[in-house]
Amino acid sequence: MSAQDKKALVGIIMGSDSDLPMMAEATKALEKFGIPYELEIMSAHRTPARAHEYATTALGRGLKVMIAAAGAAAHLAGVMAANTTIPVIGVPMGTSSLNGLDALLSTVQMPGGIPVATMAIDKAGATNAAIFAAEILGLSDPAIAKKLVEHKEELAKAVDEKNAKLKAKLAEGKA
Amino acid sequence: MSAQDKKALVGIIMGSDSDLPMMAEATKALEKFGIPYELEIMSAHRTPARAHEYATTALGRGLKVMIAAAGAAAHLAGVMAANTTIPVIGVPMGTSSLNGLDALLSTVQMPGGIPVATMAIDKAGATNAAIFAAEILGLSDPAIAKKLVEHKEELAKAVDEKNAKLKAKLAEGKA
Amino acid sequence: MSAQDKKALVGIIMGSDSDLPMMAEATKALEKFGIPYELEIMSAHRTPARAHEYATTALGRGLKVMIAAAGAAAHLAGVMAANTTIPVIGVPMGTSSLNGLDALLSTVQMPGGIPVATMAIDKAGATNAAIFAAEILGLSDPAIAKKLVEHKEELAKAVDEKNAKLKAKLAEGKA
Amino acid sequence: MSAQDKKALVGIIMGSDSDLPMMAEATKALEKFGIPYELEIMSAHRTPARAHEYATTALGRGLKVMIAAAGAAAHLAGVMAANTTIPVIGVPMGTSSLNGLDALLSTVQMPGGIPVATMAIDKAGATNAAIFAAEILGLSDPAIAKKLVEHKEELAKAVDEKNAKLKAKLAEGKA
Amino acid sequence: MSAQDKKALVGIIMGSDSDLPMMAEATKALEKFGIPYELEIMSAHRTPARAHEYATTALGRGLKVMIAAAGAAAHLAGVMAANTTIPVIGVPMGTSSLNGLDALLSTVQMPGGIPVATMAIDKAGATNAAIFAAEILGLSDPAIAKKLVEHKEELAKAVDEKNAKLKAKLAEGKA
Amino acid sequence: MSAQDKKALVGIIMGSDSDLPMMAEATKALEKFGIPYELEIMSAHRTPARAHEYATTALGRGLKVMIAAAGAAAHLAGVMAANTTIPVIGVPMGTSSLNGLDALLSTVQMPGGIPVATMAIDKAGATNAAIFAAEILGLSDPAIAKKLVEHKEELAKAVDEKNAKLKAKLAEGKA
Amino acid sequence: MSAQDKKALVGIIMGSDSDLPMMAEATKALEKFGIPYELEIMSAHRTPARAHEYATTALGRGLKVMIAAAGAAAHLAGVMAANTTIPVIGVPMGTSSLNGLDALLSTVQMPGGIPVATMAIDKAGATNAAIFAAEILGLSDPAIAKKLVEHKEELAKAVDEKNAKLKAKLAEGKA
Amino acid sequence: MSAQDKKALVGIIMGSDSDLPMMAEATKALEKFGIPYELEIMSAHRTPARAHEYATTALGRGLKVMIAAAGAAAHLAGVMAANTTIPVIGVPMGTSSLNGLDALLSTVQMPGGIPVATMAIDKAGATNAAIFAAEILGLSDPAIAKKLVEHKEELAKAVDEKNAKLKAKLAEGKA
Repeated sequence: MSAQDKKALVGIIMGSDSDLPMMAEATKALEKFGIPYELEIMSAHRTPARAHEYATTALGRGLKVMIAAAGAAAHLAGVMAANTTIPVIGVPMGTSSLNGLDALLSTVQMPGGIPVATMAIDKAGATNAAIFAAEILGLSDPAIAKKLVEHKEELAKAVDEKNAKLKAKLAEGKA
Repeated sequence: MSAQDKKALVGIIMGSDSDLPMMAEATKALEKFGIPYELEIMSAHRTPARAHEYATTALGRGLKVMIAAAGAAAHLAGVMAANTTIPVIGVPMGTSSLNGLDALLSTVQMPGGIPVATMAIDKAGATNAAIFAAEILGLSDPAIAKKLVEHKEELAKAVDEKNAKLKAKLAEGKA
Repeated sequence: MSAQDKKALVGIIMGSDSDLPMMAEATKALEKFGIPYELEIMSAHRTPARAHEYATTALGRGLKVMIAAAGAAAHLAGVMAANTTIPVIGVPMGTSSLNGLDALLSTVQMPGGIPVATMAIDKAGATNAAIFAAEILGLSDPAIAKKLVEHKEELAKAVDEKNAKLKAKLAEGKA
Repeated sequence: MSAQDKKALVGIIMGSDSDLPMMAEATKALEKFGIPYELEIMSAHRTPARAHEYATTALGRGLKVMIAAAGAAAHLAGVMAANTTIPVIGVPMGTSSLNGLDALLSTVQMPGGIPVATMAIDKAGATNAAIFAAEILGLSDPAIAKKLVEHKEELAKAVDEKNAKLKAKLAEGKA
Repeated sequence: MSAQDKKALVGIIMGSDSDLPMMAEATKALEKFGIPYELEIMSAHRTPARAHEYATTALGRGLKVMIAAAGAAAHLAGVMAANTTIPVIGVPMGTSSLNGLDALLSTVQMPGGIPVATMAIDKAGATNAAIFAAEILGLSDPAIAKKLVEHKEELAKAVDEKNAKLKAKLAEGKA
Repeated sequence: MSAQDKKALVGIIMGSDSDLPMMAEATKALEKFGIPYELEIMSAHRTPARAHEYATTALGRGLKVMIAAAGAAAHLAGVMAANTTIPVIGVPMGTSSLNGLDALLSTVQMPGGIPVATMAIDKAGATNAAIFAAEILGLSDPAIAKKLVEHKEELAKAVDEKNAKLKAKLAEGKA
Repeated sequence: MSAQDKKALVGIIMGSDSDLPMMAEATKALEKFGIPYELEIMSAHRTPARAHEYATTALGRGLKVMIAAAGAAAHLAGVMAANTTIPVIGVPMGTSSLNGLDALLSTVQMPGGIPVATMAIDKAGATNAAIFAAEILGLSDPAIAKKLVEHKEELAKAVDEKNAKLKAKLAEGKA
Repeated sequence: MSAQDKKALVGIIMGSDSDLPMMAEATKALEKFGIPYELEIMSAHRTPARAHEYATTALGRGLKVMIAAAGAAAHLAGVMAANTTIPVIGVPMGTSSLNGLDALLSTVQMPGGIPVATMAIDKAGATNAAIFAAEILGLSDPAIAKKLVEHKEELAKAVDEKNAKLKAKLAEGKA
């Protein structure tokens, strides 16, 4: 049974289907952690009613964390945060002419009172949004907490293996 | 009878009362043009329900133009634009550590479909928002249209007078 | 009879024919709203006399709104605004090495007294300039006002359809 | 009994005592939510050993969330995140010549695998870090969850009161 | 007889009288070089007709060089350059919230065909505009050419004297 | 006889042969104006002695204007200006990761006393550097002055022709 | 015997194997100077323990200089500098959406007390890191010092040859 | 005997006496490490001959390291590096309207072949330039090497003391 079959704990929403390739990094990571999620395309500006409804019902529907991705004047995460008390994570998309600086500032510079936990622009941010959601859920779910420790070890191992491969290649070069 | 007594044609909204000194430039300009307005403090993030209500009822209440001022991750104008079909003018406030670059990008970089007419950061933008509202209303109100022509002449005259004063001062200096 | 045959209400001007692919978004949107427009290539710097003439005669020729697109030190919208009292909308083009940050600041940071309603850089801005023109004209033209409401519904519907398609695809993936 | 007497759930760390006035916003907010915290000055660069120790022992000591504030090449939050699996929130300080743009990018642009939940620069970010910590803890603590709902209501009420005061003042002006 | 009494060779224009303290650096430098100048306040946006007239008559009136100072969406130098074939020097004023980055880009990023010789933001730029005008005029005026050589020597001497003073102070400190 | 055969009046120097495609715009423009020039590759940092020699002998060798192109920490124009009293024009190259913002600031932000007349980044700047040199030389050479007037007319004509072509195409589309 | 066989004096470390093509410029330069080096992939965030170990043992293992390359929130050089007293050179990689501005600020804006000698973004920075290491080692190694003088001559010669080639080509063009 | 009496190993140069308050941080640090230095005011642009002479004679006069501070289009460090093979450290001064971003890019973005080791803008950079010079000299001077270790311990101790003071104050607050 995949993570999609269980009741979603994390809601991933994005402003446009063009954000899907980036946000696939988030779904891959959540699946790895075994965290059930739901995926929606909605827009703070184009579907304000649905966005509002999604935010206000999130807590009641059992969502624990929201991940909102948007580009340019990226308001989606802010609109979510304004209408819920569960943690909202924002991922700025670098889709405009300004390479995501606009989306970053629109997401992170929230006024006092309404936090959005902002991640890096694009792919790294999408991955980290999922891991951060796992860190939140891991506080009360030992299985996820354990996977987070393993994930940290894998990250280190992957770098170590690249390093070993480089060393081997350099050694060969000298032989 | 002041402009405040008549049925408001322009709704000026701002995210915080700290924006009032800036936005007073807008009310002064509207009063000069004899355009009735209303003034509200509301926040896309802190009073999302009231903001939503304000936007969706604006057209029905007879508003013709909205002016929305906000700083930092400035979403107020965008939220208005998402929920109405009357023209929304955005004024970025330079209140954060980034001097308004964040508010400018959050206001101007709206996605295709939902325009916000963005003005300059701070005071110049507040003044221009009011004049732009007058330009819109002047299309169907000859009295405002006439005042806009006079306003342009006054602008030129004010510069010319400063120039004359400078010339006089320079001439004195040589006498 | 197409929108081009009727007396133009909106004047779209651009600094170079290289801006045409972007500004085609504006003409498409105006045609959808049934708003007659005219299209001109002119330059604040290379054809200053024609630009001046265009701006000063706009009101008399019956134009209601102007849309001016330019890149780099984008002065075209500002020159228009300095010489007319009808609303001028500026669209910054991201054509220079600085990706449109220069055009954005040159267009939006107008001094108090001479507003330019600035839209997003490039394509989104071109589309939104047309919609904003429709919003202005819709204040006194119920047909346009109605189309604006429909347009908002279509925007939402398009996002909803993308969302449904995504959901279907995800469901298939699990079957 | 104040929040300081109970076993800390949130660790607030900052790179310098000059960050205290900003981070006092975070402690005030945590106290309001009744969340016990601890406060430490440590530096990723000047006390790397203590920083490392703090991060690696955080989970074992019962901390649930970390808030790290730093300016300039702000590495403190990143170092924490590299060495723990509990959620780390970063607050960029605008203390350098570049007004916090450096601290913002150093905090938010984390590589895939190691998330830091970044808040706004300076005061708003400090407040929001605390509220975001409350949102995380509120997922499993109904008392905090309830206070978050009240907090949202208070935010709205505070804006509404400012609005009422403004309205009253405007009305007086006309009387 | 001061430089002001002779027929002006350099026209200094500025968008606002608030630019005078900066541009006084330019007049001081021109007087030092004995170059007659005229000083005008005019605006590309507020007095477009006078600006246009000034530019188109400059050559005929015997002006050899123009210096144009403006802030924000600084179009003044560009408007001059569009309407004359004498060299136009632009000085960006750092008067807006963005500290002159807007004025710099609006002045320097001119399209191919219409050059504006852009100087540094604010005071250094004002001084250098005058010296650059002297360099242009010095090509055909040996007296100015000689003064430019002397000016370079004075610049070096001033630095050398500051250096000597520092050395003396350091020596004292050790005695 | 081409412009290259006569004694050079303009010295074009560039930091690297990779700048040649950009600077060819400058040589084309100078040839059009019939202005003899010389072309050199030299570097403020890699050939400081030759750069110094070139600058200090420029006036004596009969050069009237220098055009210096460089990218990144673009010091070439500044080094020239420090060592000559003839006008130096700087053209920032957008060759680094920062798209020329670094070269622009390194070229334009010269300290008071040592002006560099800065043009736009890349191609537009290269063209304009040549035209600006022509404007300087045209002050004492009526043939060049006349060509500058013709050049302005050609610029306008080229835009007008593009406009006519567009109009024709639009008319066809409707037929 | 290549530089790789001798005991390493310079440690080059990089955050990811995707940085290798850039950092190959550094190894090429070190080999040219005959300076033995070692090459490691490690990450401040993914392998913090190994990074810490590497830094704290560097001096004891005989390393004289470290070169650390990283992108985005580039903390690698800072972590090295925090844990060693040998000179650490940082090379910002332009790998993120922001083209290296983030990595530059994360590397260069170190707090007082912990220096990182920062080089240019990407390739030029990688080359220069190696040359700077040679300049440090050349202070006590006359063979390297001599090679540095030769390197400077070669740099000049390479530019001179490009210049001669250009001149020849231009002369041909006229023949 | 103070550090000033011995033969200078480090040459500190700055573009203007207004940089002295910043660069006093460097002299204080060098004195603490017992490293003899000399201090000169010179300018790449205003005293190019002296700057050139200083750079070319540095090695012969026994200097081991140079520290060059300059603001705006900061070329001083680059000019030094172009004319010497000893390590040159650059400190960008935040003296212009752009807060040092211009000086930072002008200093750090050096072309391949000519490194400048760039430090942070302003005070932190001045301090770190001195410490980095000590790290270079400490490679062959055990007394300096020892002081560097002590300095690192003092840095940590100072932070720890601030931390202890904070803890004490917090404890008092609760008593």
